Amino acid sequence: MIVVLKPNLEPAEVEKVIAEVVKLGYEPRPIHGNVQTVIAAIGDENTHQSLETLASWPQVEHVHRVQKRYKLVSREVKKGADKDTIVKVHGQEIGAGKKFCFMAGPCSVESEEQLLATAKAVKAQGATFLRGGAYKPRTSPYEFQGLAKEGLRLLAQAAKEYDLGIVTEVLSERDVELVAAYSDILQIGARNAQNFSLITEAARSGKTILLKRGMSMKIEEWLLAAEYVLAHGNPNVLLCERGIRTFETYTRNTLDLGAVAAIKKESHLPVIIDPSQGCGRADMVLELCKAAVALNADGLLIEVHPNPAEAWSDGQQQVDFNLYAKLVAELKPFVTAVGRPL
Amino acid sequence: MIVVLKPNLEPAEVEKVIAEVVKLGYEPRPIHGNVQTVIAAIGDENTHQSLETLASWPQVEHVHRVQKRYKLVSREVKKGADKDTIVKVHGQEIGAGKKFCFMAGPCSVESEEQLLATAKAVKAQGATFLRGGAYKPRTSPYEFQGLAKEGLRLLAQAAKEYDLGIVTEVLSERDVELVAAYSDILQIGARNAQNFSLITEAARSGKTILLKRGMSMKIEEWLLAAEYVLAHGNPNVLLCERGIRTFETYTRNTLDLGAVAAIKKESHLPVIIDPSQGCGRADMVLELCKAAVALNADGLLIEVHPNPAEAWSDGQQQVDFNLYAKLVAELKPFVTAVGRPL
Amino acid sequence: MIVVLKPNLEPAEVEKVIAEVVKLGYEPRPIHGNVQTVIAAIGDENTHQSLETLASWPQVEHVHRVQKRYKLVSREVKKGADKDTIVKVHGQEIGAGKKFCFMAGPCSVESEEQLLATAKAVKAQGATFLRGGAYKPRTSPYEFQGLAKEGLRLLAQAAKEYDLGIVTEVLSERDVELVAAYSDILQIGARNAQNFSLITEAARSGKTILLKRGMSMKIEEWLLAAEYVLAHGNPNVLLCERGIRTFETYTRNTLDLGAVAAIKKESHLPVIIDPSQGCGRADMVLELCKAAVALNADGLLIEVHPNPAEAWSDGQQQVDFNLYAKLVAELKPFVTAVGRPL
Amino acid sequence: MIVVLKPNLEPAEVEKVIAEVVKLGYEPRPIHGNVQTVIAAIGDENTHQSLETLASWPQVEHVHRVQKRYKLVSREVKKGADKDTIVKVHGQEIGAGKKFCFMAGPCSVESEEQLLATAKAVKAQGATFLRGGAYKPRTSPYEFQGLAKEGLRLLAQAAKEYDLGIVTEVLSERDVELVAAYSDILQIGARNAQNFSLITEAARSGKTILLKRGMSMKIEEWLLAAEYVLAHGNPNVLLCERGIRTFETYTRNTLDLGAVAAIKKESHLPVIIDPSQGCGRADMVLELCKAAVALNADGLLIEVHPNPAEAWSDGQQQVDFNLYAKLVAELKPFVTAVGRPL
Repeated sequence: MIVVLKPNLEPAEVEKVIAEVVKLGYEPRPIHGNVQTVIAAIGDENTHQSLETLASWPQVEHVHRVQKRYKLVSREVKKGADKDTIVKVHGQEIGAGKKFCFMAGPCSVESEEQLLATAKAVKAQGATFLRGGAYKPRTSPYEFQGLAKEGLRLLAQAAKEYDLGIVTEVLSERDVELVAAYSDILQIGARNAQNFSLITEAARSGKTILLKRGMSMKIEEWLLAAEYVLAHGNPNVLLCERGIRTFETYTRNTLDLGAVAAIKKESHLPVIIDPSQGCGRADMVLELCKAAVALNADGLLIEVHPNPAEAWSDGQQQVDFNLYAKLVAELKPFVTAVGRPL
Repeated sequence: MIVVLKPNLEPAEVEKVIAEVVKLGYEPRPIHGNVQTVIAAIGDENTHQSLETLASWPQVEHVHRVQKRYKLVSREVKKGADKDTIVKVHGQEIGAGKKFCFMAGPCSVESEEQLLATAKAVKAQGATFLRGGAYKPRTSPYEFQGLAKEGLRLLAQAAKEYDLGIVTEVLSERDVELVAAYSDILQIGARNAQNFSLITEAARSGKTILLKRGMSMKIEEWLLAAEYVLAHGNPNVLLCERGIRTFETYTRNTLDLGAVAAIKKESHLPVIIDPSQGCGRADMVLELCKAAVALNADGLLIEVHPNPAEAWSDGQQQVDFNLYAKLVAELKPFVTAVGRPL
Repeated sequence: MIVVLKPNLEPAEVEKVIAEVVKLGYEPRPIHGNVQTVIAAIGDENTHQSLETLASWPQVEHVHRVQKRYKLVSREVKKGADKDTIVKVHGQEIGAGKKFCFMAGPCSVESEEQLLATAKAVKAQGATFLRGGAYKPRTSPYEFQGLAKEGLRLLAQAAKEYDLGIVTEVLSERDVELVAAYSDILQIGARNAQNFSLITEAARSGKTILLKRGMSMKIEEWLLAAEYVLAHGNPNVLLCERGIRTFETYTRNTLDLGAVAAIKKESHLPVIIDPSQGCGRADMVLELCKAAVALNADGLLIEVHPNPAEAWSDGQQQVDFNLYAKLVAELKPFVTAVGRPL
Repeated sequence: MIVVLKPNLEPAEVEKVIAEVVKLGYEPRPIHGNVQTVIAAIGDENTHQSLETLASWPQVEHVHRVQKRYKLVSREVKKGADKDTIVKVHGQEIGAGKKFCFMAGPCSVESEEQLLATAKAVKAQGATFLRGGAYKPRTSPYEFQGLAKEGLRLLAQAAKEYDLGIVTEVLSERDVELVAAYSDILQIGARNAQNFSLITEAARSGKTILLKRGMSMKIEEWLLAAEYVLAHGNPNVLLCERGIRTFETYTRNTLDLGAVAAIKKESHLPVIIDPSQGCGRADMVLELCKAAVALNADGLLIEVHPNPAEAWSDGQQQVDFNLYAKLVAELKPFVTAVGRPL
């Protein structure tokens, strides 16, 4: 830790801070600069109490951490040949430059007809996972909350018929076991991105976790949420960028495509992009997908619906079958450009 | 709903949209303006599907909702004498200009000694509720996660000894029953502000719910989260503003004090301010409290610790006993100025 | 400066960084911690090049500044009796707990009738400065751009008739001389808060500068913009918080009332609050004013119009004469509570 | 305009609003819905006063605009063969799928040696424009402010020697004539993105304007700033996305790559991406460039420096010659994938 003191402190005041640094278990190295003193405090920041509490003292200007707060998800822990995690799920390999992964399907599971038609359409375009919400976190209690178990059953039926893996969101710790029984990948949504009870429970299921970034989550916080999964013994995490909340109103969220590059620098985990939530408008999805591929994301999670205008949730951001087919076709040159099999 | 069409559409295209509006159960009233057509769609927006899905059509520029999405929490539902909700809990009345409510205590419950000393100190300054976290949602899995049940026991002991109500956070649906058994007010934290499974479970306990605003939650979304509580039969909600996430780094969050005025306009529910999380620095808490009182907030939730520098969590934002006593003393003229008993 | 190196660097790599630190004029003090090395670099950060450039090297994780970047505006430069700046303008003293200052008037100067009526109304309620825009920075080129010189003339006429000082915005370096000739306080608007050419030119006029915070300006950046004024020999700066841009859409901006406390901690300069821009809706202005007073702001800049619905700009946030009178009356107990004369 | 009234208004109150709508020049069409009345107000929103002022009335809930506020920059004005603007400057064509344009050079012009070396290096990699700041808008008055006219002279020398066009920022209305004499493209920086005096003056020079997006500028506001240029008779505008300000601190700004798609939908103007400012760290620039190309941006503005660690400004985000060469090489497959000549 680095403890920056206020300018022009009396030596006795500096000593008080040094004494507290010692008391809290660190070895202090004071450096007396031109205007103010800085105390470098040597010690493992992940096992000792943070010295950030010292900022409550009038002698202290700032406290900076030195060490990274995440370990298991960090790039440093993986070296050599398998420096990127490859998540193996439903016969697919995701990450490390492997085949680009398409996860597609409706925002909500609405009916057998809707889901089977969608599964067929996306499978025909090469998708390997079917997405679809059976449990929906809705801003208002008066909005459609999902078909629940019946939705899971329909997902299983469609996935079986078209040989697709299933990605679906789990909202409650109590549903983890049930949802895990029906699906291949458990999605933790943006609203639960720091619901550590749910994340931990989902991690323990052993299923692959698709962890969406929270609406106002910093990169570091997102990686630390993933760290919860790994720290509970589950290495299979897909980080999913789905747009952050900013002042812009043209789009529903601002898709932080640069997060792909940031995560690839910091972590060995695969990154998936959700362009549908990311912009909230169907007419921008295709272009954002191209950027996701170019940035070497490992896959896409795309909302597809037979008739978006009549969708029971978020129709404005769902693409129809024609647009989905066009999208997959137009992405091919970019997948090739990044050197991946499609 | 208002459906704004693109400029210069062919009449046949306008007709298609009108037909879809009818199909979705609304009565369309097209208005042909100078440049473009607007379709006013008459119907109850809270029982029909939203027409926002029509934004996926190329003919449609924008869709605006007309009706408010919240009902039970809205000011419109309460008229006359009891137009503001008064939450009655632990012998206190909160809201509607009643006695200003002080909720104070440590960020985390750490030990019997720490908690009893704090309870004594805040009680001496007129606090009526003891706050303290037994379950802590920590950004990193390696940080102190709270004393759990032992923390609840200590809260109960301290509250009994000093005749204080208890406010404490619940993180898991599975803990709701236990936490409710020990406390008067269940806190739903910012990270769970749209964890509707937890909110619903907490609502069903019948306990008063202190619902913190999420880090990037709009006023409307916050009210809709409270609507979940009321819609599940629990009218006792305290809305707690605790700072929103912005670009500013001088403070941990930006305390949106104007939210007090906004909520008072929109809703009958009491509003509590948490200045500690709100700014994340002990040296600004006192000033923010003055503003909260002046804005006619109904109470404060303040972090107080015997020795903030050695706190196990968030020491930098906790005030010590001296500062807390000073704070309460300096607030008195403002409480008087808003016409409340202290 | 503090240069944090990457973990587990080879000693030769550490040496390269140390050599560069020396080359750039700092005295390096390496501290070898558990996982990584930190180099404390001693030297005046305001005369040497910033070492933040070293972040471009692969060996470097982070670089932190130690010293504050502002000097003349900082609290440290003023000690003792006159530790707060008192700006003396138009016979008034602003700052340091002096009489609370009301600056009021229309968003735009529209006509003689409008301006004289407003000047009369605000003077009757104790305002000492008349605000009004003669040059308007409008988002669209098709919106009313202000009456320009005729607006200045009307301001001078109204101010003379009612013995008020004038606050008005200047948009162009070329207009500084003219605007300064007609006014007491030159307003630099939010859109020009980092237009250093204009700020410098305005500073040189010798007039008091009311410096609005930019829409997404950090506290530090705002103080540095004020530093430009002081560094050009003009000590008379009023810092004006007018709302920052956030994700919230209920209000036009989010008024960062905590900025009053932050500025008072960091600087000796007076702080003015603009609640009209701050929330963008007339029905919240009164409540925000109470908070501003409680936080010990030194004055208010309020938009007042005889008939807001027919205002030529921003009518939705302007209060009419009745509401203005109510506002001033309701603020009195709070002004008393902070111990200021009204 | 759409005026949404409060629920359950008395008819007389509705009539008052209707009368005001008439008075302000619109033709009112009231629609009486289930809960509340909506008044569609027919009239040209760009020539009449906005009815948004009616929001100051207690009867009014919301006011929505219907028409777009920009005209000349909008996609609607260009139809047929030349539906995208092609900016012709220094013998190059920018926009409409023409050759991808590389603008590269140092953040600041520092010396003849630095600039000539950089010009040579970027020319060798196919850049057609040399960027470099002679006038620098610096957050602190104590930071390097640019070489001013000497910087312009050096730019001209380097550009001539290597046959490059010049892009350079202008900060002051008074410098427009001088800067225009030395350069091909006048850059309006993010801090001046709503400095309409400067924008207008620059527009009048007839030079191509590279208009950076302001730090917290909405898409609509950015287009309206460009509308100022076109409305002053200058059709040659390049819109440059350079990152917006968000809560994220891992990067200096959040590059809103989706803005390329948004602008292409709304406008016929070319879009340039500045990845250097966009992320503020040299180690992410290459990846962001790939995304920019994939999104069909028309060019890149990249900061390149012979020795970033010793740069006089923003060294952490400048790439050196080796990285620049690698970047251009790695972009080629993506330029090909979007179907452009390199």
